Amino acid sequence: MPKRIAILHGAGYVGGELIRLLQAHPFCTLAAVTSRTFAGKPLWHAHPALRGQTELCFVDETRLDVLDFDAIFIAAEHGQGARAARQLLERGYEGILIDLSADFRFRQAAIYPTWFGFEHPAPDLLSQFVYGLIDVYAPYPEGTRLIANPGCFATGLALALWPISRHLSQAQVAVTALTGASGSGTQPKATTHFPEREGNVRAYKVLAHQHLPEVQQVLGNGLHLAFVPASGPWTRGIWGTAILTLPKAVDAETLNFWFTESYKQSPLVRLWPGQLPELRYSVYTPFCDIGWVVRDRQLVVGFALDNLLKGAASQAIENLNVLLGLPQTAGLLPTPTPAELPT
Amino acid sequence: MPKRIAILHGAGYVGGELIRLLQAHPFCTLAAVTSRTFAGKPLWHAHPALRGQTELCFVDETRLDVLDFDAIFIAAEHGQGARAARQLLERGYEGILIDLSADFRFRQAAIYPTWFGFEHPAPDLLSQFVYGLIDVYAPYPEGTRLIANPGCFATGLALALWPISRHLSQAQVAVTALTGASGSGTQPKATTHFPEREGNVRAYKVLAHQHLPEVQQVLGNGLHLAFVPASGPWTRGIWGTAILTLPKAVDAETLNFWFTESYKQSPLVRLWPGQLPELRYSVYTPFCDIGWVVRDRQLVVGFALDNLLKGAASQAIENLNVLLGLPQTAGLLPTPTPAELPT
Amino acid sequence: MPKRIAILHGAGYVGGELIRLLQAHPFCTLAAVTSRTFAGKPLWHAHPALRGQTELCFVDETRLDVLDFDAIFIAAEHGQGARAARQLLERGYEGILIDLSADFRFRQAAIYPTWFGFEHPAPDLLSQFVYGLIDVYAPYPEGTRLIANPGCFATGLALALWPISRHLSQAQVAVTALTGASGSGTQPKATTHFPEREGNVRAYKVLAHQHLPEVQQVLGNGLHLAFVPASGPWTRGIWGTAILTLPKAVDAETLNFWFTESYKQSPLVRLWPGQLPELRYSVYTPFCDIGWVVRDRQLVVGFALDNLLKGAASQAIENLNVLLGLPQTAGLLPTPTPAELPT
Amino acid sequence: MPKRIAILHGAGYVGGELIRLLQAHPFCTLAAVTSRTFAGKPLWHAHPALRGQTELCFVDETRLDVLDFDAIFIAAEHGQGARAARQLLERGYEGILIDLSADFRFRQAAIYPTWFGFEHPAPDLLSQFVYGLIDVYAPYPEGTRLIANPGCFATGLALALWPISRHLSQAQVAVTALTGASGSGTQPKATTHFPEREGNVRAYKVLAHQHLPEVQQVLGNGLHLAFVPASGPWTRGIWGTAILTLPKAVDAETLNFWFTESYKQSPLVRLWPGQLPELRYSVYTPFCDIGWVVRDRQLVVGFALDNLLKGAASQAIENLNVLLGLPQTAGLLPTPTPAELPT
Repeated sequence: MPKRIAILHGAGYVGGELIRLLQAHPFCTLAAVTSRTFAGKPLWHAHPALRGQTELCFVDETRLDVLDFDAIFIAAEHGQGARAARQLLERGYEGILIDLSADFRFRQAAIYPTWFGFEHPAPDLLSQFVYGLIDVYAPYPEGTRLIANPGCFATGLALALWPISRHLSQAQVAVTALTGASGSGTQPKATTHFPEREGNVRAYKVLAHQHLPEVQQVLGNGLHLAFVPASGPWTRGIWGTAILTLPKAVDAETLNFWFTESYKQSPLVRLWPGQLPELRYSVYTPFCDIGWVVRDRQLVVGFALDNLLKGAASQAIENLNVLLGLPQTAGLLPTPTPAELPT
Repeated sequence: MPKRIAILHGAGYVGGELIRLLQAHPFCTLAAVTSRTFAGKPLWHAHPALRGQTELCFVDETRLDVLDFDAIFIAAEHGQGARAARQLLERGYEGILIDLSADFRFRQAAIYPTWFGFEHPAPDLLSQFVYGLIDVYAPYPEGTRLIANPGCFATGLALALWPISRHLSQAQVAVTALTGASGSGTQPKATTHFPEREGNVRAYKVLAHQHLPEVQQVLGNGLHLAFVPASGPWTRGIWGTAILTLPKAVDAETLNFWFTESYKQSPLVRLWPGQLPELRYSVYTPFCDIGWVVRDRQLVVGFALDNLLKGAASQAIENLNVLLGLPQTAGLLPTPTPAELPT
Repeated sequence: MPKRIAILHGAGYVGGELIRLLQAHPFCTLAAVTSRTFAGKPLWHAHPALRGQTELCFVDETRLDVLDFDAIFIAAEHGQGARAARQLLERGYEGILIDLSADFRFRQAAIYPTWFGFEHPAPDLLSQFVYGLIDVYAPYPEGTRLIANPGCFATGLALALWPISRHLSQAQVAVTALTGASGSGTQPKATTHFPEREGNVRAYKVLAHQHLPEVQQVLGNGLHLAFVPASGPWTRGIWGTAILTLPKAVDAETLNFWFTESYKQSPLVRLWPGQLPELRYSVYTPFCDIGWVVRDRQLVVGFALDNLLKGAASQAIENLNVLLGLPQTAGLLPTPTPAELPT
Repeated sequence: MPKRIAILHGAGYVGGELIRLLQAHPFCTLAAVTSRTFAGKPLWHAHPALRGQTELCFVDETRLDVLDFDAIFIAAEHGQGARAARQLLERGYEGILIDLSADFRFRQAAIYPTWFGFEHPAPDLLSQFVYGLIDVYAPYPEGTRLIANPGCFATGLALALWPISRHLSQAQVAVTALTGASGSGTQPKATTHFPEREGNVRAYKVLAHQHLPEVQQVLGNGLHLAFVPASGPWTRGIWGTAILTLPKAVDAETLNFWFTESYKQSPLVRLWPGQLPELRYSVYTPFCDIGWVVRDRQLVVGFALDNLLKGAASQAIENLNVLLGLPQTAGLLPTPTPAELPT
């Protein structure tokens, strides 16, 4: 009996990827997608590529019978996620809830006015959500049903550095990471205007990006990050480097062990020892690629991932799968990977 | 004594090119540039690449001493050009005026509500302007000082077909032409949003583009055009094909003669017999490239030009030059071309 | 019991798409992929995105036990397909064979030296192959097992014009169509060198493209095509226009009927009456999109498709499916479409 | 009397830019351009955009009357520059010689086998060349006539860090810098094949790029660089970040002074305090843009430049100008900048 799934605010790019993945999911049925703007219209009005692949129409969120679903994804913007979650819970929803906004990623409500510019609308709920960086935190506590899905930059950066953070008590890390224009959402902006974006690279929120506290939350206080996010002239994908000076030389074999050991249970983290992954390897895939090069005491860790997939929608499906007791890659890879088979 | 030039509404892409060209013009001084949005700010606030190349600041149009200039360019949007021109003339301006909007390209005011969606604000001025498709209409009538600079699609299409129209009394012509995103102006739109534009081609105003009557005005009634304009995933340049069936076979030599004869006085039209020009040949240059291939009775004429240059700013400079009695390519090419030397 | 499938010459772009699709196919198992260059190496050495998704390695074609497969795809270049097919048949292969090269698309061997520049190496086999433009020719004759999969331009162009050709006895059609760089294969060339390709459009084989006779073979002699193929600055997808003058006015409703009637059994042809499809609608999908605009007697038919999918790999899977008696969209869409259900 | 200039090996991208700039240079005449491949053909066969702008044809290098020129540029690949220079000097050439290859950038011949993979063909000449990083080393010693023009990455990186190196005795610097495809030259390669390059970022020579010793030669031994060069999906321009931890806090004003003081004589270095420059600001301009952001002890210096201009051709023209006693920006900017006027 397939699980019934709904997506709230499904007209954006992340919503489009969730629809595409859930349509093809072997154990789930996409039962409803909401959008205020497109309510009553076929899904393909927002996502033309889906025409001919589904007969579903968008519905208005208020008309949703929330008790009818096993799991609900919220693909809203920051600030809207918390409101949508509160309403669902107030309406008695007791199923799985996976919020893809930043609204439940932090334990401290004080982070929101500082880093996001708004007061948190539901601070009492913060402690109920589990941070869904699955490759670090799974298996989740028994009974987990509320997940705060990680940010795209944060996923790449945290996965690249978590193995390091477990072995180094102190280091300065310089991070430069570039993201594609789909990360800015569907609304046209000056920074996504084609003549300004093509052939351009533009840094923004230098040393002040909101994913920084999210990453530090994973890595602890040993690694001090200087993070320069930038936008690049492509649509999908994040590519970055994390450069640090090791306090003492670490041989290649030891480094390799740090990474392989950390991700031995992670079917969707691919490791590239001795090289940095190219961006294109991961785009349109559910993988985060991590590679590294060491020379004397200089270490570079590179990472690449599709911001809409491992950085959003496909990681959300991974979270759905494990909460439902399914193989972690169901609906994402053709068949379970060795890491998912019982050992 | 250099001529003093002003640009009205100079914060857009065409304005930026006019500034760049006039800065380097050997016989002109760029004396003022207006913008409401940027008044009081350096030009490089709108055009960052110009920083370090000019100390000029934008001024508000109302503060301009219009009698201080030998020539004024209006780089406004359709509908604003006529208003700006009327004001200049009412303020007693008697110099050269080159309007780059569509507002004075037609003799019939009735065309504006039909094709542009607005009533013409200064229909009495229409007859005073000369249509500035320089390669067809120069030399202009003695005393010409008001020029309606042609549209970008219209320039390419009219130049590609004018030699044909002089020799064929009747033909159906199928035109497909693609333009870059700078043609949409500086305001972000859904159609210039990077994720929608990259890797995409999108037809618009199919068989109904406003440049169609502009082209027909040049070509007369013999050629019937079916015109499909489209947007392509690049910033600058127009590339198009015009395909027709010749009423009877025309040999290659005759065709070559039609083109070379038509443009023997045109220093900035380049001819490519037997091949279609690539888009990149003309981008960032003041040339319109025209090539053709004939096979039996099928004829293809290809054209390519930079929409911001030959399709706007550099053709405007050509017009300025000839009205000032300068070599047509002054400020556009390093030295006069053979076509400009006295014969 | 899943069908066992092999791919010959699977290291190119089309091979990569076949691998990706067959890996996820619900009724098939990808059992072998050959490549001379990569023999012995994992598939991901040629297709990095596949790493972590399959454990298969490339094998050398000569080591293949050809009797072990239910179906074999040949993803070779023009000229190699015929040699590979001949060898398979000589080695006693009796299963389904789908050749994606141009080598079996024509009944007349004389076409090859004229249009492709080589003598056909197996002219005796030409008559045994069925031309696999599935939306026009299915259901195939009982017992069909050898398929010549159509070309990418030819698929788009033939599908766009076939409904017209059934109703017009005579017309001149002007076609301009642009394709992405993946159509040139994996070998770097001057025309795919990034600095020459970015922001560029380049026509080639003007009025002389090898897909022209392929299209005429479908459309018959009534429509006379002037075909200008061009390369555009993107990786995947073909977008084109076909423009014609109707001998007499045809109302929109009649035109719509021509198209809907023609493709009522075609689950992977999407129709867009009254507009031309954007390229991005079809890229990364198995659909061919067809739209049209009529104004007086001028008709424009637009088409768009992914050259690697509907123009190659996914159409090949459609052919595989129908020869195996499976739903036509198996492995291509999440669920059978209405057109595939028994009526 | 204009100076007569020649370009050796002028068929590549840098050669094309030198031609374009010298054509428009107010005090120079481009008198000859050599190319083995294109000898006897018009310049526009290699550089189509130049058609109609010059009547010059390529000549074979061996036919050049070398005593006929005031200055010669060598735009050859690494390894060819030294051979060409030796031949010129052996033929008695006594004018200005500016080599744009890496062949004379180092004092130690031993660097070439280690970093470039070849034995230096003219080690005796190394000491005669002056390293032409003009913003650091000008004015050059009296009588300088042989210049080794700096590399593109090296120019950006050295200019970004030189002001820092003058004030910090010790620091680890993490550099990530991305370059466009024109930096790879005109020969198609796997890494410039459009389908592999578009939408991709790819690191190469991680911690091992040949520009590293060039930069260290400028900065001295205090700054230890970890340099990750990468290729980005655009044609022109380099964009990079250099991130370091300051040994103690430095206030913004002091930092600004470090940079403004260092470049107060540099008309073609633009400073952007408090922000990182966007790539597009500098592309198609002769400027190197440098910006910086400081937060506590973390400092980021960003840099951007056109790899073919300030990273090659326009910096070479700056060197030419100063050796000829002309304003440094002649032929590069419309008018001399304040930094060039006598104070």
